Amino acid sequence: MSLNHQGAEPGTPLTLTQAASLVQGRLDGDGSIQIHGLAPLDEAGPGEMAFLAMKRYGRLLRTSSAGAYLVSSEFEDLIPTGASKVIVDKPYPALRELLLYFGDEAVLRPEVHDTAVIGSRVRLGSGVRIEPFVVIEDGVSIGDGTRLGSHSVVGSNSTVGRDSILHAHVVIYPRSVIGSNVVLHSGTRIGSDGFGYTEIEGIHRKIPHIGRAIIEDNVEIGSNTTVDRGSFGDTRVGTGTKIDNLVQVAHNVQIGARSLLAALVGIAGSTRIGKGVWMGGRASATNHLEIGDAAQVAFDSTVMKDIKAGETVSGSPARPHREELRRQANVHRLGKLQERVEVLEAGSGESG
Amino acid sequence: MSLNHQGAEPGTPLTLTQAASLVQGRLDGDGSIQIHGLAPLDEAGPGEMAFLAMKRYGRLLRTSSAGAYLVSSEFEDLIPTGASKVIVDKPYPALRELLLYFGDEAVLRPEVHDTAVIGSRVRLGSGVRIEPFVVIEDGVSIGDGTRLGSHSVVGSNSTVGRDSILHAHVVIYPRSVIGSNVVLHSGTRIGSDGFGYTEIEGIHRKIPHIGRAIIEDNVEIGSNTTVDRGSFGDTRVGTGTKIDNLVQVAHNVQIGARSLLAALVGIAGSTRIGKGVWMGGRASATNHLEIGDAAQVAFDSTVMKDIKAGETVSGSPARPHREELRRQANVHRLGKLQERVEVLEAGSGESG
Amino acid sequence: MSLNHQGAEPGTPLTLTQAASLVQGRLDGDGSIQIHGLAPLDEAGPGEMAFLAMKRYGRLLRTSSAGAYLVSSEFEDLIPTGASKVIVDKPYPALRELLLYFGDEAVLRPEVHDTAVIGSRVRLGSGVRIEPFVVIEDGVSIGDGTRLGSHSVVGSNSTVGRDSILHAHVVIYPRSVIGSNVVLHSGTRIGSDGFGYTEIEGIHRKIPHIGRAIIEDNVEIGSNTTVDRGSFGDTRVGTGTKIDNLVQVAHNVQIGARSLLAALVGIAGSTRIGKGVWMGGRASATNHLEIGDAAQVAFDSTVMKDIKAGETVSGSPARPHREELRRQANVHRLGKLQERVEVLEAGSGESG
Repeated sequence: MSLNHQGAEPGTPLTLTQAASLVQGRLDGDGSIQIHGLAPLDEAGPGEMAFLAMKRYGRLLRTSSAGAYLVSSEFEDLIPTGASKVIVDKPYPALRELLLYFGDEAVLRPEVHDTAVIGSRVRLGSGVRIEPFVVIEDGVSIGDGTRLGSHSVVGSNSTVGRDSILHAHVVIYPRSVIGSNVVLHSGTRIGSDGFGYTEIEGIHRKIPHIGRAIIEDNVEIGSNTTVDRGSFGDTRVGTGTKIDNLVQVAHNVQIGARSLLAALVGIAGSTRIGKGVWMGGRASATNHLEIGDAAQVAFDSTVMKDIKAGETVSGSPARPHREELRRQANVHRLGKLQERVEVLEAGSGESG
Repeated sequence: MSLNHQGAEPGTPLTLTQAASLVQGRLDGDGSIQIHGLAPLDEAGPGEMAFLAMKRYGRLLRTSSAGAYLVSSEFEDLIPTGASKVIVDKPYPALRELLLYFGDEAVLRPEVHDTAVIGSRVRLGSGVRIEPFVVIEDGVSIGDGTRLGSHSVVGSNSTVGRDSILHAHVVIYPRSVIGSNVVLHSGTRIGSDGFGYTEIEGIHRKIPHIGRAIIEDNVEIGSNTTVDRGSFGDTRVGTGTKIDNLVQVAHNVQIGARSLLAALVGIAGSTRIGKGVWMGGRASATNHLEIGDAAQVAFDSTVMKDIKAGETVSGSPARPHREELRRQANVHRLGKLQERVEVLEAGSGESG
Repeated sequence: MSLNHQGAEPGTPLTLTQAASLVQGRLDGDGSIQIHGLAPLDEAGPGEMAFLAMKRYGRLLRTSSAGAYLVSSEFEDLIPTGASKVIVDKPYPALRELLLYFGDEAVLRPEVHDTAVIGSRVRLGSGVRIEPFVVIEDGVSIGDGTRLGSHSVVGSNSTVGRDSILHAHVVIYPRSVIGSNVVLHSGTRIGSDGFGYTEIEGIHRKIPHIGRAIIEDNVEIGSNTTVDRGSFGDTRVGTGTKIDNLVQVAHNVQIGARSLLAALVGIAGSTRIGKGVWMGGRASATNHLEIGDAAQVAFDSTVMKDIKAGETVSGSPARPHREELRRQANVHRLGKLQERVEVLEAGSGESG
């Protein structure tokens, strides 16, 4: 039997009163309604709760059959009269509590599957789960409670901390360092060689990569993301940082703590990203840059020079966001500007 | 022995008359020429047929040694006088017929390789092919005639329909739904967690992902593409949709039937893409958008607001294509506009 | 025991005199200093050598504790007075020599792991290393000294040359050709079907892909990169070309010798790239183009028409770099241009 976050058996419904209490929200309506789960506004049925935290989805309320709503206090008035709801100031932490309650992720037993190939001088902590076809090379250390998903490979002399999860098909190159409470999704590659060559007599000769890739504690990395090792010196992803799918982190990049990099982001070699930085999807940065703490880089922007701490940038090349907006507006008005110049030319011609 | 699409033994040549008949084209020239296969214009030899459906490749005709040509009726006149050809109105369906004829993909026997690790409560259909080192977790159902390539992992309680192909190294996370006649190429990841966090006391806390990833019938997905599961509610790729390599489909994205997404496309969370949509390579869309049926998004464009059905957009941010062309033209003329203003200023100075 | 490039036991320090001799550099300072390795300027200790080849890192010199410096002759004067240094004209080849010396990559023994699944009609050269869970399908040939990393799959009737390295989790589709001295990093997929469909009665029908993917000698390809096979005719990556992580090379693309493609580059179908071409990170090219020899495509640029040999382009769509710079400058001056037009309008109004 698996238990969910609150210790209840999965599948146990909540009354709306209990739900309100769980999320520390304000109940408005019938507290005895039984909630069996969450569902999108346009799919929720009478036994389900729907969620509203963005104005644009308000239009779905009219036809929603949800039994109740979890709603941001900001949009409370959009909920149809008479519908029961739980109102919260911070909708996402509340949503998270409910999803933790209703989620029923199977608890996976510790085991070392007998197909796993485990090298010499390997230290396995207690309570580890080593799934089928895992390869652990020589000199590796795996911390307590860590799970290595099917087919994962941990290269020689690497370490993985405790309570980490490597989903199926993760590859860790030799001498990498993976912290505790780290989650690596399928197909993520940590520690491959960086893209470094030097031309000698017309041939691109490889620069050896003898540095490491270090993933600190509480990092989560999405599917098919790549983090190269350092050439000399290390590549580092700081504690609590979250990285989405299909992201490229090149050799010797340093990412500070608690930053967020969305999907398809690319960071070129040796660039340093501060703490608490946000990079939107498909954003990128060229090499040898510094992006300061708490900087925000908009979706699809291309950072080509240093960004100061706290700055918000957008565009390609990325500029301070206000400047980019002004630039876009100027270009937008270009048609009119041309007409104005034509008027002036006509006037000047008449007087000429 | 394997048979090709037309039931002939692979390697059996066609006469040009037979080829014309196969593609329902018009023969012009020597119908007795033996065709052993297709080859590019600049590589084809006397026993091979070359293909012309784009004007830009016409320049290769002069030096081509092809034995015959398959040509779009549009470019019929470009073929050198005296060369034998088959003329068709729709060149790509005709090309497809010939490639089906000449292709000799081995027919792979059904088998369950004895290295596969198969959990409990697994239902395997008849005629399945389970290749080496496949992992099928508990509660999975695999339909008749489906092939799971080497090292593929099908997570617990997932289903795969019939006659689907998972190439080597595909990973399906638990509780995913894969339809029939689906093709997933190597390294594709279906159902990994979306990139969803909420900040609680300065820490990015993960939003549980308890929705599913659903891949409907007749979908093909390229190599190393990622499709995340929904947070609550599902991520869905509609029937007949085709997705190229290295594409990111984020949590709760909905893609309608028969859409095409080229390589390196990125779709951010909860965005809904209609039916019959075309997104060119590297195009992207930010989250919570709606892209209407039959919309066309040009190569490398960035969709940042809703797109109406049938609209063609380009640019970053993406705009109606005509508007973007005008904008580009305006920018292109800027140097001249500056000169015109200088002339006016000079004139105004003289008269001042 | 493993030996490094110079035949010394790993861990053996160099005197600064020996280091200078190894890189054919000029010694300035105390030649008896013992060097145990290389480290970044801000991390190097007294037993380590730091490296300076870019002006922007000069600011780190003041606080560096490095025992000695390897420095480009261009920046020699930036090194603090009294510090010992080796001065070279070409810093990267020199760095490479030192990293080869200090690197201690384990020498991996030849072996065929007993978990490997090897088909019929397979030819394995001498001295190969076949790691756990490798699958080699029927009719494959693997050259002498080649290493197939854990879980790699070599599809039927493919060949791999000698002294090549396939890191863990590489997949080679059937009938591919991989040369000698090739390095393929984890998760790279060679020979998957291209994205080719033709609409027949409203349905996207797949164009068969019966061409091959050919990777010539001395190519290195990064992690999670995809190279599709040709539809008819082949996809080809030329000798000595280096490709970074997460790159898409579509069907029938031809890349000449000694080109460099950085991370997240995307090349659409049938485009031909010459010899010695540089494509910066996230650059892309649409289909059916020609990019001439030695062309340079800047970071994040989008090539939408043919590029002449030797040309440097940037922007989206990509233009000759000087033209793009002028265009950017014109847009930058737009605010001022508007003001100038306003002045003219005011003047014209007064005189009107």
